[in-house]
Amino acid sequence: MSNTKTSPGNCFEDFRIGQVLRHATPRTVTRGDISLYNALYGSRFAVQSSDDFAERIRYPEAPVDDLLVFHIVFGKTVPDISLNAVANLGYAGGRFLAPVYAGDTLSAVSEVIGLKENSNGRTGVVYVRSTGYNQDGTEVLDYVRWVMVNKRDPASPAPETVVPELPEAIAPDALGDACPLIDAEAWDNELAGSPHRFDDYEVGERIDHVDGMTVEEAEHQIATRLYQNTARVHFNQFTEGQGRFGRRLVYGGHVISLARALSFNGLGNAFHIAGINAGRHVAPLFAGETVFAWSQVVEKAEMSGRHDVGALRLRMIATKDRPCHDFPLAGPDGAYDPSVILDFDMWVLMPR
Amino acid sequence: MSNTKTSPGNCFEDFRIGQVLRHATPRTVTRGDISLYNALYGSRFAVQSSDDFAERIRYPEAPVDDLLVFHIVFGKTVPDISLNAVANLGYAGGRFLAPVYAGDTLSAVSEVIGLKENSNGRTGVVYVRSTGYNQDGTEVLDYVRWVMVNKRDPASPAPETVVPELPEAIAPDALGDACPLIDAEAWDNELAGSPHRFDDYEVGERIDHVDGMTVEEAEHQIATRLYQNTARVHFNQFTEGQGRFGRRLVYGGHVISLARALSFNGLGNAFHIAGINAGRHVAPLFAGETVFAWSQVVEKAEMSGRHDVGALRLRMIATKDRPCHDFPLAGPDGAYDPSVILDFDMWVLMPR
Amino acid sequence: MSNTKTSPGNCFEDFRIGQVLRHATPRTVTRGDISLYNALYGSRFAVQSSDDFAERIRYPEAPVDDLLVFHIVFGKTVPDISLNAVANLGYAGGRFLAPVYAGDTLSAVSEVIGLKENSNGRTGVVYVRSTGYNQDGTEVLDYVRWVMVNKRDPASPAPETVVPELPEAIAPDALGDACPLIDAEAWDNELAGSPHRFDDYEVGERIDHVDGMTVEEAEHQIATRLYQNTARVHFNQFTEGQGRFGRRLVYGGHVISLARALSFNGLGNAFHIAGINAGRHVAPLFAGETVFAWSQVVEKAEMSGRHDVGALRLRMIATKDRPCHDFPLAGPDGAYDPSVILDFDMWVLMPR
Repeated sequence: MSNTKTSPGNCFEDFRIGQVLRHATPRTVTRGDISLYNALYGSRFAVQSSDDFAERIRYPEAPVDDLLVFHIVFGKTVPDISLNAVANLGYAGGRFLAPVYAGDTLSAVSEVIGLKENSNGRTGVVYVRSTGYNQDGTEVLDYVRWVMVNKRDPASPAPETVVPELPEAIAPDALGDACPLIDAEAWDNELAGSPHRFDDYEVGERIDHVDGMTVEEAEHQIATRLYQNTARVHFNQFTEGQGRFGRRLVYGGHVISLARALSFNGLGNAFHIAGINAGRHVAPLFAGETVFAWSQVVEKAEMSGRHDVGALRLRMIATKDRPCHDFPLAGPDGAYDPSVILDFDMWVLMPR
Repeated sequence: MSNTKTSPGNCFEDFRIGQVLRHATPRTVTRGDISLYNALYGSRFAVQSSDDFAERIRYPEAPVDDLLVFHIVFGKTVPDISLNAVANLGYAGGRFLAPVYAGDTLSAVSEVIGLKENSNGRTGVVYVRSTGYNQDGTEVLDYVRWVMVNKRDPASPAPETVVPELPEAIAPDALGDACPLIDAEAWDNELAGSPHRFDDYEVGERIDHVDGMTVEEAEHQIATRLYQNTARVHFNQFTEGQGRFGRRLVYGGHVISLARALSFNGLGNAFHIAGINAGRHVAPLFAGETVFAWSQVVEKAEMSGRHDVGALRLRMIATKDRPCHDFPLAGPDGAYDPSVILDFDMWVLMPR
Repeated sequence: MSNTKTSPGNCFEDFRIGQVLRHATPRTVTRGDISLYNALYGSRFAVQSSDDFAERIRYPEAPVDDLLVFHIVFGKTVPDISLNAVANLGYAGGRFLAPVYAGDTLSAVSEVIGLKENSNGRTGVVYVRSTGYNQDGTEVLDYVRWVMVNKRDPASPAPETVVPELPEAIAPDALGDACPLIDAEAWDNELAGSPHRFDDYEVGERIDHVDGMTVEEAEHQIATRLYQNTARVHFNQFTEGQGRFGRRLVYGGHVISLARALSFNGLGNAFHIAGINAGRHVAPLFAGETVFAWSQVVEKAEMSGRHDVGALRLRMIATKDRPCHDFPLAGPDGAYDPSVILDFDMWVLMPR
């Protein structure tokens, strides 16, 4: 008797504009998940690390790290969106919309907002807007990503091309919904680990985050399973050993979290990621390689109607096996320096 | 001054029929343990993953994964039963008897129910029934296992042979005590990740779970210590490097959990393991190897007095470094295919 | 624009006698942290493992493992004290002052109590007393450590030499503040895993803890990040691969916790570390090596005003790739045996 129960994932032909996919599996985020997240990346932002610190600035308790929320929501979309993906091409238009606390249950829904078959006729690009919800139906995160997906049959006709208009960046007045009004006077720079607040950063400033973190197979596998991300390339050495790289690929989100944790050294008061303007995994990371990072302040914005925090737009670059004291980015040919693996454009909030 | 404080474990001569062993160490199961379990296996069953999903079908909250309960109870028995074991030969007659929730404290007691010296005079087989209890003294799990244990002295006399009669399978009407009456109408297939319920499965049906998971040394060590399982072969490369395999052995229960997590793809609504009919670790697994799995529906049973769920008897086979699209089991000589590492016969519950 | 935001850590010239450093980042200890701690070391002490066991002997709930508290407090001191350390030379005068429970938030403050430039003029020794606090400002731990730190400029003048007087050991009447009065009658030896109580141990007695535990890179990295310890030598293979050892160094505290967990076999009722008299990391540990341990009872003390517990002073020795049946310590030249990596002198409490 043959097997018809397993999910083969969707191919390019399976997507249509306006299609809405309710993803499995809802996930209650716990203190256990937070501990593992901290242990995998070494995050040190005080608001997420300490209930006491969070409460003093008027959070009800320490919130869940923004990127842990992102990875869990992202993970849910994988079985429906990117199981047959050739590449995760980019992110845009991401906003954190409500704080998440331990005990909240996250689920995710995606809408197909763009389709474009590639000229080779074998693959196409799918654009989805994915939204994460908590158990009350409140939106906690939404973002757009686009992936290159295999066609089932190269002969199947191409859909009408729809490429969504994506903002270059989230407008500052759309930021901050996931950050309650804080008491910036109660913010203790010493405990937070940095004397530098919003006003101390200048547009154009570049910061080398100095430290490097080597990734082990067990670490990225544990992380990626924690997010219930089922993409096969991260876990199956038997198959990947015969594939393009001969090795398992590290989940791109693991690199984002490593770079964010490293960025504490220089951005210790950047306690909240409020928006993801753009993100691109420039090159793959493999176990055994060491991640470094640097950031540039691209823009500064005051927050409409609030004086507790300001928004810094940061371009965060991660490299592998290459320290960042000279801010590697483009090579002599204008393309990315071969060490660059991540180019991530985000808004962070800092106390004023 | 010599050392008399350490426990050498029991040898075959130390066991007698009817002997009752109260095991150390009681263990409070927490949300932290659950997170680690999820991160080690990538489990995606919705009832265990989401308080919200669990509450909608009338659990008080998400229950602890059945196999996490099994591993913790099993782990407690190791120092008294199998520290000097040559092999863990099999399981039978296992039933989950009450749900376990975060905050419950588990302890374990074993009774020796069978003894049989091997003809070589150097080892014997010990059969125990192990029972797990929560802090109220409620039985949460019991199962029989038998192990081959070294004799201290080959010259010591053989005990009278007692081999317990073990059921080929748990009778369906003895299943379900650990599963509250659920509201199957409130079960959301999309959120659960599978459209297939009890009535959609047929006896004889085989399901390839498709995906593979490579195991790292750090992963199985972390798992096995989480269960406070002290069997030396899993942790000590210095000694094992000089032993039979030259490597640390992966705890057999790690394979069961990996296969169970992989089986989500094809059995996404099989939310509860109600009984363990039989289990055998056919061959060892080592770090670096990749686990695949397939299942066959062996039997279907309605549950006495309840219409919310039905029971599927599954034979779950795990292999290493061998995908399961053609359902590997027996080789040409009738023995197990060399890729097979686990042959596990269990009852699972599915909503109707 | 250049980078002035990152912390370079302190050099020898930056310390002065009496200087007080309030360390970042406060950290709420959770059940998740406790799970990870257990999974990394396989700890089996019943009081920390089971709420039920702890409550029966009159704890309000299972307390956080003493060494987890130590590592978290220690981790906070690293960015300010030892980021530029050449070596962590020793510990002394450590006392656990109040129990810590899940949900407590720990922070740390250090005072510089000694300075001594080395004769080479390139490094100096810094002595600090570090104190851990909970969210109420209650002291939970204090200890002295001294580290060898690089000078920024060999030409800078030496400070006046101040070497603090350190006690050879904590006096017994200064022990026990972190241990509530327990009900020793309610202590269940079987559940605790050992029949041996305070009166069963003799001064001079040596105990081989038998088992060995191999350390993986992923494990010590996960542990060290869990403690938010940022010392670079543990994480960065790119840099360390070009350094003195060609490899990442395992955090010394990881060895202490491994030895403590192994010591359960022989010291199962030694449920609480009350004081750290002295500690020295004799040699580095690297991933792939296997840790063994043995202990000697150095002193026994009754506790002033209480009859529930007694204090054992233990010298705990850890080795690598060397079982401890013959208690390796000194080589023929009187120096440490080359297998020895840790020499740790502590007070533990046992029920009477």
